[in-house]
Amino acid sequence: MTAPEPVLAARPGGRSARIRAAVHRAVVQLVAEDPADGLTVPIVAARAGVHATTVYRRWRTVGELLSDVATSRFSGEIVVPDTGSLRGDLRRWAADVATDLADPDVLALMRAALGAGGQQGACACRGDRERQLAAMIERERARRSGPVPSVERAADVLLGPLYYRAIFANAPGSPEWARDLVDILLPGPVDPTDDGARSRA
Amino acid sequence: MTAPEPVLAARPGGRSARIRAAVHRAVVQLVAEDPADGLTVPIVAARAGVHATTVYRRWRTVGELLSDVATSRFSGEIVVPDTGSLRGDLRRWAADVATDLADPDVLALMRAALGAGGQQGACACRGDRERQLAAMIERERARRSGPVPSVERAADVLLGPLYYRAIFANAPGSPEWARDLVDILLPGPVDPTDDGARSRA
Repeated sequence: MTAPEPVLAARPGGRSARIRAAVHRAVVQLVAEDPADGLTVPIVAARAGVHATTVYRRWRTVGELLSDVATSRFSGEIVVPDTGSLRGDLRRWAADVATDLADPDVLALMRAALGAGGQQGACACRGDRERQLAAMIERERARRSGPVPSVERAADVLLGPLYYRAIFANAPGSPEWARDLVDILLPGPVDPTDDGARSRA
Repeated sequence: MTAPEPVLAARPGGRSARIRAAVHRAVVQLVAEDPADGLTVPIVAARAGVHATTVYRRWRTVGELLSDVATSRFSGEIVVPDTGSLRGDLRRWAADVATDLADPDVLALMRAALGAGGQQGACACRGDRERQLAAMIERERARRSGPVPSVERAADVLLGPLYYRAIFANAPGSPEWARDLVDILLPGPVDPTDDGARSRA
């Protein structure tokens, strides 16, 4: 228990929160530096400045740890917009998700979480995204009557291409491209004043 | 060079091809058994019944090896259909891709290749899929004049949701759901005789 923990000492909050933050930071750094290298708990512990047993006490495996880091990273980073219409909300949100997925460090973390975390890691990578879609669609239902797409359909048409291009095609889509995906989900005339993303971003 | 190589002895083809086949089989088995466990070259070599140096001579890293296995697995497994129309071709093809992605061993291999193989592994997971899309779309252009979707759009609307559901949502889509994705890509009246997949699958 005498290992040097310089990162911990400088952080506010309880010891438990500080350890968690230091370990999360270490994972993000290591994955960004060498995505293909096998991450192990001792390597993470050394970088974080804590004992390996401290890490094992909270996360039994590297997969669990990566899933936890991914859950944190993909929660709360993106805010649900409120432009007054579903089309405007989705257009701005899709552009924000595209911008987030264009960060190479984000992709490195996703790939690592998918590789070591299995289903848990995969679920963590979706993070809040489907819940955010559900919130926007639910609000539209409260706003007006008429057909509204299901969350599943919205995830297929928006998150599908966004994640596919980022993870599989190694070519994250642009915010403009992402905005236009919404027109596939919501066909019909586009109100030019509906484009919250361009006028207010 | 005296390690037992029982698997190799039983296989036809040259020594080089036999080693490659044995190593590929070992990777597929190991990944299916424990996706979250860190795969190493010595572990693969032991399972394949070859020396680790033999593996290192062909594949410098586990990431390269996983990418190679994924490239093999996602090439040639699915045949490009020829139903006489783009809609019919895509409907049958999308259903075949959905069926392939519903195999847990395929998903385990994909996740491992994404995790250890980085961009190379990600590219390997798309395999022949975009080339197959291009072939079907090119054939449609030769068949008739009129608007035909781009390969990029087809990949967004078909491969996006297919891969998203399989990898991220842990809920691979059904063949029926995959067929209906084609109606998002090709809106307009559906000719009931166009449904090659249902009548001939």
